[in-house]
Amino acid sequence: MTYQEVMEQARGAMGPYCKACPVCNGLACRNTVPGPGAKGIGTGFIRNYQKWQELCVNMDTICENKPVDTSFTLFGRTVDLPVFAAPVGAMTLHYGDKYNDLAYNDILVAACAEAGIAAFTGDGTDPAVMEGAAAAIAKNGGCGVPTVKPWNLETIRQKMDLVKAADPFAIAMDIDAAGLPFLKNMTPPAGSKTVEELREIVAMAEKSFIVKGIMTVAGAKKALEAGAKGIVVSNHGGRVLDQCPSTAEVLPAIVDAVGGRMTILVDGGIRTGIDVFKALALGADAVLIGRPFVTMVYGAGAEGVKTYVEKLKAELADTMAMCGAHSLADISRSMLYGF
Amino acid sequence: MTYQEVMEQARGAMGPYCKACPVCNGLACRNTVPGPGAKGIGTGFIRNYQKWQELCVNMDTICENKPVDTSFTLFGRTVDLPVFAAPVGAMTLHYGDKYNDLAYNDILVAACAEAGIAAFTGDGTDPAVMEGAAAAIAKNGGCGVPTVKPWNLETIRQKMDLVKAADPFAIAMDIDAAGLPFLKNMTPPAGSKTVEELREIVAMAEKSFIVKGIMTVAGAKKALEAGAKGIVVSNHGGRVLDQCPSTAEVLPAIVDAVGGRMTILVDGGIRTGIDVFKALALGADAVLIGRPFVTMVYGAGAEGVKTYVEKLKAELADTMAMCGAHSLADISRSMLYGF
Amino acid sequence: MTYQEVMEQARGAMGPYCKACPVCNGLACRNTVPGPGAKGIGTGFIRNYQKWQELCVNMDTICENKPVDTSFTLFGRTVDLPVFAAPVGAMTLHYGDKYNDLAYNDILVAACAEAGIAAFTGDGTDPAVMEGAAAAIAKNGGCGVPTVKPWNLETIRQKMDLVKAADPFAIAMDIDAAGLPFLKNMTPPAGSKTVEELREIVAMAEKSFIVKGIMTVAGAKKALEAGAKGIVVSNHGGRVLDQCPSTAEVLPAIVDAVGGRMTILVDGGIRTGIDVFKALALGADAVLIGRPFVTMVYGAGAEGVKTYVEKLKAELADTMAMCGAHSLADISRSMLYGF
Amino acid sequence: MTYQEVMEQARGAMGPYCKACPVCNGLACRNTVPGPGAKGIGTGFIRNYQKWQELCVNMDTICENKPVDTSFTLFGRTVDLPVFAAPVGAMTLHYGDKYNDLAYNDILVAACAEAGIAAFTGDGTDPAVMEGAAAAIAKNGGCGVPTVKPWNLETIRQKMDLVKAADPFAIAMDIDAAGLPFLKNMTPPAGSKTVEELREIVAMAEKSFIVKGIMTVAGAKKALEAGAKGIVVSNHGGRVLDQCPSTAEVLPAIVDAVGGRMTILVDGGIRTGIDVFKALALGADAVLIGRPFVTMVYGAGAEGVKTYVEKLKAELADTMAMCGAHSLADISRSMLYGF
Repeated sequence: MTYQEVMEQARGAMGPYCKACPVCNGLACRNTVPGPGAKGIGTGFIRNYQKWQELCVNMDTICENKPVDTSFTLFGRTVDLPVFAAPVGAMTLHYGDKYNDLAYNDILVAACAEAGIAAFTGDGTDPAVMEGAAAAIAKNGGCGVPTVKPWNLETIRQKMDLVKAADPFAIAMDIDAAGLPFLKNMTPPAGSKTVEELREIVAMAEKSFIVKGIMTVAGAKKALEAGAKGIVVSNHGGRVLDQCPSTAEVLPAIVDAVGGRMTILVDGGIRTGIDVFKALALGADAVLIGRPFVTMVYGAGAEGVKTYVEKLKAELADTMAMCGAHSLADISRSMLYGF
Repeated sequence: MTYQEVMEQARGAMGPYCKACPVCNGLACRNTVPGPGAKGIGTGFIRNYQKWQELCVNMDTICENKPVDTSFTLFGRTVDLPVFAAPVGAMTLHYGDKYNDLAYNDILVAACAEAGIAAFTGDGTDPAVMEGAAAAIAKNGGCGVPTVKPWNLETIRQKMDLVKAADPFAIAMDIDAAGLPFLKNMTPPAGSKTVEELREIVAMAEKSFIVKGIMTVAGAKKALEAGAKGIVVSNHGGRVLDQCPSTAEVLPAIVDAVGGRMTILVDGGIRTGIDVFKALALGADAVLIGRPFVTMVYGAGAEGVKTYVEKLKAELADTMAMCGAHSLADISRSMLYGF
Repeated sequence: MTYQEVMEQARGAMGPYCKACPVCNGLACRNTVPGPGAKGIGTGFIRNYQKWQELCVNMDTICENKPVDTSFTLFGRTVDLPVFAAPVGAMTLHYGDKYNDLAYNDILVAACAEAGIAAFTGDGTDPAVMEGAAAAIAKNGGCGVPTVKPWNLETIRQKMDLVKAADPFAIAMDIDAAGLPFLKNMTPPAGSKTVEELREIVAMAEKSFIVKGIMTVAGAKKALEAGAKGIVVSNHGGRVLDQCPSTAEVLPAIVDAVGGRMTILVDGGIRTGIDVFKALALGADAVLIGRPFVTMVYGAGAEGVKTYVEKLKAELADTMAMCGAHSLADISRSMLYGF
Repeated sequence: MTYQEVMEQARGAMGPYCKACPVCNGLACRNTVPGPGAKGIGTGFIRNYQKWQELCVNMDTICENKPVDTSFTLFGRTVDLPVFAAPVGAMTLHYGDKYNDLAYNDILVAACAEAGIAAFTGDGTDPAVMEGAAAAIAKNGGCGVPTVKPWNLETIRQKMDLVKAADPFAIAMDIDAAGLPFLKNMTPPAGSKTVEELREIVAMAEKSFIVKGIMTVAGAKKALEAGAKGIVVSNHGGRVLDQCPSTAEVLPAIVDAVGGRMTILVDGGIRTGIDVFKALALGADAVLIGRPFVTMVYGAGAEGVKTYVEKLKAELADTMAMCGAHSLADISRSMLYGF
């Protein structure tokens, strides 16, 4: 099944909001929430996508002609390429009733493991969501990263006990989720966490802990101070706060500040293997991709995921070869024009 | 009543010029005068709106989770959020015959006081306009800022006597009004004022005096020299001079020059609570919003005003929480990307 | 007769190329030659217009309220405002058969003199064009600037004898005319001139001599060296060379290099009194305006010219008053935002 | 036959992908491959074109009026203007079945020689393509540059023997061709070359050797180190790697690094004589033009080529005259605005 065929099938299978556009760039959905859009005037998603496009890569093919290695190891788990499926939730509400969160995570976790990568799973106000995600990760040998929302500490402790039992190779928290319109004034309550609270949560996790939703150098330093092993530079795809800068814009300064001392992941508007290359050239260790995996799963389930992962891998390998990088470690900022 | 419902009602209730657009950005009305448009080629209004949009906010949710306080005190009067309704005049001419200036001010002053903010009122060649405004402010316990046009000193003295009797917490003058097409060659005459004349006017006012229509550092310093307690960085929504810079562009230098020594307000293209946040982050103490309040009053009277104020407050509070600011004093330039 | 009425009449009176657009900005005609368009891909005209729009003026009305004086003196001749009608030729070919060059110049020279300004007149391969222009200028008391094309020296000498007899207050040469598609390989031949040749031409003129078509500091210095009393910073409205910078872009450096030592005029995309203000703020002494005068003459003859000159004067005076300039000498670069 | 007439004929004569657009700028074909489009999202071609347009030329006609000489000598071969037809291959696939590679090269090589320039010829997996190209070049007195793909060394040696027999004045290799979708996993294999391998290839060639596909200073230095006599700054028209910078952007730094020590050619989005002027002003010695020659040949065969070469020459000569350059050596970076 080709990528185009999966996309065409997705168009009939999704709810009224996502149009499964040829390029998933936020222009059609803008501020459609419920739906895949961004908050406020909807420019957060658009800018995320746009800023990757403004970066150009430096071609140089006077180099050795040898195979390219795209493999990546995160906290002891080696994957075929430095790409993870991002956590997504409230599937029925935003993407249509073909799947609920449990069914989606069940397909996604297994499909990603099968395709050689790993999925982050989302959380929900319904406890069954995280239970299902934990079960899926356990079933797939711990190949997945459960992502807990920033509930009160009591709730987080319960969720941690649940997900640790699945033995994932890392646990994440999307610290910015307090800004989600759908999470405001819910039970259990969610909200910001101080460094001290975050340190307590890291201790509870007993696994490599990733803080998702970092957009400033100050935030990255606080996550490091709290004991996180990694961060995801992310504005939640533009969905938690209107008119943020793009992740591509803030990434370099964050890399300069905490790079080498913790793992730096990034998401937001990354669509192709060349975008992955650019993120790594700016200094990210790996990336997360969200909405496109939804389209793939709605379009063709596990086969959609496999098709997309293969496409990403081919694009990344091609770009690496054309820029003279034979392993991820070879990719440097000097491979971007103007840096 | 939701904001969308007020907007829909406004569409049927306004005159032929204002379209009550989903986003009030000057693109539809451009240089429509009479109407809500700007002078000349009409880019003044558009640029005002646009430049706020180009600013991005820095999200950082690793912080204490506690309630946000949006309250603001201006010259002893505390309001719920740092937003004032701007003075607008010639309502029938520009916005349709549902209201004349008297009826509009009467609703606006009371509705703003009720909603927890305060309104600036406009002036007109017809003396009844200011008389009505003064009466409305008196009725609402001085919760309003009468804004006198830069007439000749004799006329100003008469207006001052009238408005002081209403005991407002401040009095303003839109010093740039001489550029209004509708005020040219009128009786009484209006025009520029020297620092000396302005000092005399400040003395007449016997209240905290605000000079509205400052667009340069030199102008801000002259207002300070004349004894004004505050300024409004404003180009009159683009209506008094074509092809001014936007207020967002000139604000930072003015803050750097006179900030701390006088209160700095700003208007022009501010539409949402996130725009308010950006203005405060650049150094303004508070903002004025004009055209949207017209739409709200034409759409649903006092209820429209209430709906819009609640929307602004929720957006401002949400942005503050997501950027780690718990009071207006916490908002700083470092919360804007690139500053 | 209003400006809008003249424009509407012009729409029916012009040939197939010029559309008498509401804003004369080169977007509709682009590279239409014959017609009012520019050479090559047609961006020269568009960029000329656009770059004036990107400049913003600094409003400051805290100043004395006194009348504004827009009068300007060029080589002893005082005009009501610092605006001249630019030389235009081949009227029938480019703008339609309502006028030929003789008829057009005849109306334009008299109408400009009557309206308080002065016209530059164009030249043609047909000797009758310059004869007619000289006659029109003589009839109007020397109120006009005949503009000779850069023919061979022999032809220029003949033209000079002709135009000096009309006793104009200045004589000009559009040194860039060699690039006109319609002048290539014509008889008499036209082309570039060295400083030495230009000095000889200046001597022939025996009047204040203006070199039109300067786009570089080097060119301005050569004109000065050759004895010219003035230059017109001009790219011939984009018609002689494709993809020049705009005149607004190159003007400041030329002013810095030769300002004070010779008169600096500028044309290209200037349409309103606020554009005139910007040109003067950048350091020009006065401006030329071309295409709009054609539209005015085709629309309503002398009355069109009068209407447009009044419009320009009102706009210029309004902008001066709103920026605190009471005479042309008061206008400075600090009245532009960012300068 | 006029240029417009050739274009109109081309529209009926080409395959389904190329639209023979009035301006060949990549906007209509974008990422159409097969077809004339670029790789990935298709911005490589568009950016190539766009960046030349952003450069402006400095007009200065105060100079001697004498004829302009556009002639250029490359490795002992003098041509009428500094323009070469670029190598293009797989004609039937991309441009329609009016021609295959052999027929196209046969027409192109002869037509270019006849029109006073010279053509580079493309290579293919079918050995007959290079045999035909070599024959065409031999027939035209060595007036052509055979361009060998970066096959394995054994294959390259065979091709070299073949093309040297045609006695061309230079031999080229498009080192970036490994990125062509149509060349991946083909027999013989193609791919990157180290400096050492390239040095071996240069030795085999026994002719002035040109490395095509250089986009970085590092790459240019490696080509120099390998013994190349020239490079073509090129991203293969955007067809081998997505989201490269444009060639106009990278050219100046490459000129600064290796200029004077090797010949520097450039291609990508060059369409008119004024683009050629800009490339030379940035420091290139000459340019290659690709897609437009295809359109000319499909439209009118050799006559199309002649028409286009004459158009380019007239535009280049006109621009040179208007900027005061009388020979290619006179063209300097100071003739571009802002440099």
